Amino acid sequence: MNPIHIGMIGLGRIGLVHYLNVSTMPDVVIDWICDLKADDTYPEQFPAAKKFTTDYREVLADPQVEAVLITASTDVHMEIAKAAALAGKAIFCEKPVGTDDAEILDVYHGVKETGTLFQTGFNRRYDHNFRRIAEARDAGTLGKGEVLKVTSRDPEPPSADYVKISGGIFMDMMIHDFDIVRYISGRDVKTVSVLGAVLVDPEIGKLGDIDTAIVTLEFEDGMIGVIDNSRRAAYGYDQRIELFGSKGVAVAGNVHTSTTVVATKDGVVGDVPEHFFLERYREAYRTEIVSFFDKVRNGGTPECTFEDGIKAIRLAQAALEALKTGQKVNVKPVE
Amino acid sequence: MNPIHIGMIGLGRIGLVHYLNVSTMPDVVIDWICDLKADDTYPEQFPAAKKFTTDYREVLADPQVEAVLITASTDVHMEIAKAAALAGKAIFCEKPVGTDDAEILDVYHGVKETGTLFQTGFNRRYDHNFRRIAEARDAGTLGKGEVLKVTSRDPEPPSADYVKISGGIFMDMMIHDFDIVRYISGRDVKTVSVLGAVLVDPEIGKLGDIDTAIVTLEFEDGMIGVIDNSRRAAYGYDQRIELFGSKGVAVAGNVHTSTTVVATKDGVVGDVPEHFFLERYREAYRTEIVSFFDKVRNGGTPECTFEDGIKAIRLAQAALEALKTGQKVNVKPVE
Amino acid sequence: MNPIHIGMIGLGRIGLVHYLNVSTMPDVVIDWICDLKADDTYPEQFPAAKKFTTDYREVLADPQVEAVLITASTDVHMEIAKAAALAGKAIFCEKPVGTDDAEILDVYHGVKETGTLFQTGFNRRYDHNFRRIAEARDAGTLGKGEVLKVTSRDPEPPSADYVKISGGIFMDMMIHDFDIVRYISGRDVKTVSVLGAVLVDPEIGKLGDIDTAIVTLEFEDGMIGVIDNSRRAAYGYDQRIELFGSKGVAVAGNVHTSTTVVATKDGVVGDVPEHFFLERYREAYRTEIVSFFDKVRNGGTPECTFEDGIKAIRLAQAALEALKTGQKVNVKPVE
Amino acid sequence: MNPIHIGMIGLGRIGLVHYLNVSTMPDVVIDWICDLKADDTYPEQFPAAKKFTTDYREVLADPQVEAVLITASTDVHMEIAKAAALAGKAIFCEKPVGTDDAEILDVYHGVKETGTLFQTGFNRRYDHNFRRIAEARDAGTLGKGEVLKVTSRDPEPPSADYVKISGGIFMDMMIHDFDIVRYISGRDVKTVSVLGAVLVDPEIGKLGDIDTAIVTLEFEDGMIGVIDNSRRAAYGYDQRIELFGSKGVAVAGNVHTSTTVVATKDGVVGDVPEHFFLERYREAYRTEIVSFFDKVRNGGTPECTFEDGIKAIRLAQAALEALKTGQKVNVKPVE
Repeated sequence: MNPIHIGMIGLGRIGLVHYLNVSTMPDVVIDWICDLKADDTYPEQFPAAKKFTTDYREVLADPQVEAVLITASTDVHMEIAKAAALAGKAIFCEKPVGTDDAEILDVYHGVKETGTLFQTGFNRRYDHNFRRIAEARDAGTLGKGEVLKVTSRDPEPPSADYVKISGGIFMDMMIHDFDIVRYISGRDVKTVSVLGAVLVDPEIGKLGDIDTAIVTLEFEDGMIGVIDNSRRAAYGYDQRIELFGSKGVAVAGNVHTSTTVVATKDGVVGDVPEHFFLERYREAYRTEIVSFFDKVRNGGTPECTFEDGIKAIRLAQAALEALKTGQKVNVKPVE
Repeated sequence: MNPIHIGMIGLGRIGLVHYLNVSTMPDVVIDWICDLKADDTYPEQFPAAKKFTTDYREVLADPQVEAVLITASTDVHMEIAKAAALAGKAIFCEKPVGTDDAEILDVYHGVKETGTLFQTGFNRRYDHNFRRIAEARDAGTLGKGEVLKVTSRDPEPPSADYVKISGGIFMDMMIHDFDIVRYISGRDVKTVSVLGAVLVDPEIGKLGDIDTAIVTLEFEDGMIGVIDNSRRAAYGYDQRIELFGSKGVAVAGNVHTSTTVVATKDGVVGDVPEHFFLERYREAYRTEIVSFFDKVRNGGTPECTFEDGIKAIRLAQAALEALKTGQKVNVKPVE
Repeated sequence: MNPIHIGMIGLGRIGLVHYLNVSTMPDVVIDWICDLKADDTYPEQFPAAKKFTTDYREVLADPQVEAVLITASTDVHMEIAKAAALAGKAIFCEKPVGTDDAEILDVYHGVKETGTLFQTGFNRRYDHNFRRIAEARDAGTLGKGEVLKVTSRDPEPPSADYVKISGGIFMDMMIHDFDIVRYISGRDVKTVSVLGAVLVDPEIGKLGDIDTAIVTLEFEDGMIGVIDNSRRAAYGYDQRIELFGSKGVAVAGNVHTSTTVVATKDGVVGDVPEHFFLERYREAYRTEIVSFFDKVRNGGTPECTFEDGIKAIRLAQAALEALKTGQKVNVKPVE
Repeated sequence: MNPIHIGMIGLGRIGLVHYLNVSTMPDVVIDWICDLKADDTYPEQFPAAKKFTTDYREVLADPQVEAVLITASTDVHMEIAKAAALAGKAIFCEKPVGTDDAEILDVYHGVKETGTLFQTGFNRRYDHNFRRIAEARDAGTLGKGEVLKVTSRDPEPPSADYVKISGGIFMDMMIHDFDIVRYISGRDVKTVSVLGAVLVDPEIGKLGDIDTAIVTLEFEDGMIGVIDNSRRAAYGYDQRIELFGSKGVAVAGNVHTSTTVVATKDGVVGDVPEHFFLERYREAYRTEIVSFFDKVRNGGTPECTFEDGIKAIRLAQAALEALKTGQKVNVKPVE
């Protein structure tokens, strides 16, 4: 099997996750790492990569590179994606796909026209626990879907500095849940209503954001759903999904750091959930990249498309409007 | 210990539950059973009771009777309660306390003036699993309360005939959840928003009711919450509560019909939840009556007061308005 | 339905359990309570009983009495049972059925000849969790039985005074497990081997008894099993059974005091198991008596026979010999 | 950090597991792969290795090689280890360390004299679930250890051909459990008794081996224990450990393939355990090698020593004798 030659653009926290996964894949060659901070320490830090640059155009200009992983900061995703599409590279782009609607749509149409392979990086779709829900749904075990519930709580709130540039709780955190409700339900969302609160950190409130939210959803066929988010769960990363249907319910619980329980006179004590997303979704991050490379090699539609990426943004936009107006808001279409 | 002499008024489904419990209590004497259907088969059916009548006034006229259990149909709760208060009897009244607001308030004030002991029959407050949440809250283990989640699903929908006279999903079914959110949070609710759907039985929709609902709540101190109801869970009675706070979360899961699991190549199979409320809350029904008799004997405020009964109705009324208007609705005070 | 008239002989701890259950059964009349300590406080203590005596012969002489519950001290079980059989009463006899082998066999044969209904009081057979294992076995879900494992640990050791008269760990405590392995496996046991230790209380060792034991079993068809006992589990009464077969395994776990778990940074804490047998087997005690009365009324073989009672003793005897000799010991037949 | 240079000797099933782990470690260089089947397809199959040979002496002769992983067939472990020790290489040797007692002791003493680092490959010691038991034990949470229980069942029996050369159930399968009871208890075992049966496959019986076993253990300080093994669990790899002490119990349950449960009217269905050891102990295999390289780099005693490897064999030998004689057998010392 000929190896796939790739370039990685952006080596922040998530970029590093992908690097560590890809560097263990025998059939993928990392021809380039592009990072604004790339310096002469990089070759030692990232021995699996061959060449280093601070200019992504250098990567795109390399005819051997077939695919790029765009994990740079969100505001330059689309600029890079556009150039990559023009250069004929397959694209894996981290979520959210961008910050500017017009730019996103422009690139979206460009990608469509060029037939570029484009996968959006919503890693949770690849979590094997969540996939078991989708499998039960597809097997008909649950009957007709009626209520979908997602609980998603981070172990600790981000710094105020991060919140400032984060795009707010809907775009930064709940966007994962907006994508997963579409994936798990197999449906689009029609309307969004929001109950938001600042309960974790008053600083977040001063920045105009919220840190705790309950969002209710109407799906296109009458199914309803609810997402609850908190920026801080003292017991660790809390990630649960429940799909309730006419014939049954599927519930994905948390993944705990061990199966061991200790019983004493004070109770039966088990371990807390995996601390945060790097631990909880370690396998999922790997699976999504494997899936991407499979499409690069064999063709086919990515399991998470550009359109999926935009639809999650539309949901976040609707939620923001619902929070501001206190009204139920219709989710806008992609175009 | 001198036994307490009581009269039971109304021997329908719930009345029977209380009869079976009370008949095993050595320190309580059932002087009267009053039921519209009482006939000469009743003495044999209810051997623990001494006298039978179809007229509750006969019960109230008996000076030996100290307390009455009002489990007649909801529309006559207040009429009987008023007469009972005037007759100086302690009152246990099933939920909902009544159907007519003016009448309820009239009796409420009368009861207050006469200093009558009045307990509303919200049985779930006495469930030992839910009490463990309240204990964790009171012990400070959870920190400051932030998000409360209640899932409440019946095993099968009621008949259309029953739905017609039920008062609708909020007054008939979710009223339990409206009470339990106040009990578990230890707070009053400020606003209610509703997402409702007819997914279980179109007949319910034709009657102007819904069978599936997600209701979001704002509590008086900023805490938020969500209740989801369905009239039909294929796997049985689904009753779960989760209180999330700044230091932790307490989760009461379902009670299953056994602890036994069977593992084969097809999976690890456990038993379904207890089928319905008579099984699930069997102990809670007993505990609430024991608690009532304790107050009759020793004085003190009931664990579920008349005011609690009215506040649950206020929440149901707000939810109905929210469903109709599609707006967030303020919960009205008792008066 | 004509009520069954019974006499209760012996009102110790277990006698009281049965009294509390029977006193709530509308179709059973407690004509007599016989207890060595019966005095003029008994009528008030046991209002459901009609007459009281310290002489069991008075109970047996009453022609209205159809059945007796023998819950006196073990050493007089057989004397009373013999007289009861001669008096034509149906017999429920607590475990162990007696202390003297010759006497037991004498009564056993007498009971057989007179066709007397005789049920041995091994309550655990009626536990609904354990019954689920037997159901899975009978449904063929587990395939052919191969390994049976029973864990049985008391919350706290008995006093040295009790140990002296208890008959030792095998006759007093593990006898329940000896019965349950026969019930759950549906097989007789051929051989017993023992590993015993004094780890809980040296006083128990001084009395020639052990407080911790692992007993291995060979069943008549090649299936094997193991029971482990401890006189003290700090976290409460530990009662688990596992039946492993060619197609799967059924595992009955502990019953905990609530389903509620509390998660904080320190772990996920659930409640301990039900404290001891009165709580853990409350339902089972009721079910076994209901089953007995059903046989009294409708005939049929009791779910736990006299022979079952003797076989459990044979296992305890074999275990004692195995402990003393350090050898594998064949279990003797009933005769 | 200078990389460690290693040679891998033997590329069978377990050798491959180690190869896949080591090939992703940036600070380890695989200078050599030695395998009897090494041919010109190996460089492509194992791109992380630099050189290939069928003669382990070539590996040992390379002065750059600091450490060897001996994963060849058991009968040549000691020959290679002896040569490796003489060549000054640190040694990781798969279990069991050898087949011939005299040879093992000879090499053991040689290794001691030369001060060679020698780690035995009992991977389960590194399982994070089991480590939680050891942590609870060390933290004093469990009090004094009293009873240790290990359940270990393979998903499917080996072929008769494999059984012939396997050394039997004790040396091939239960040897892992013999090691883990020493690790989890923190004690040596004094005596072993065995109950064995052929219940899975009569062919195994014809070869003089058993496929189902319950083994009881006395530890040096009076603690007792039991291991049960089956060659076939229909529901997958069953790996559970329970350490019971005076203050509590720690129980490591199975690791299931997902946390998701599906509830329908037929029950609540969860996924089966991880299928077999490659899945179940994937992390543990990695952790043990990381631990080995840490000792190579920084010195110190391996977490699983040569002596540990021999002691597990002594237990297997005692079990075999106990099976044959039907007697309790004293475990022989290392010398």
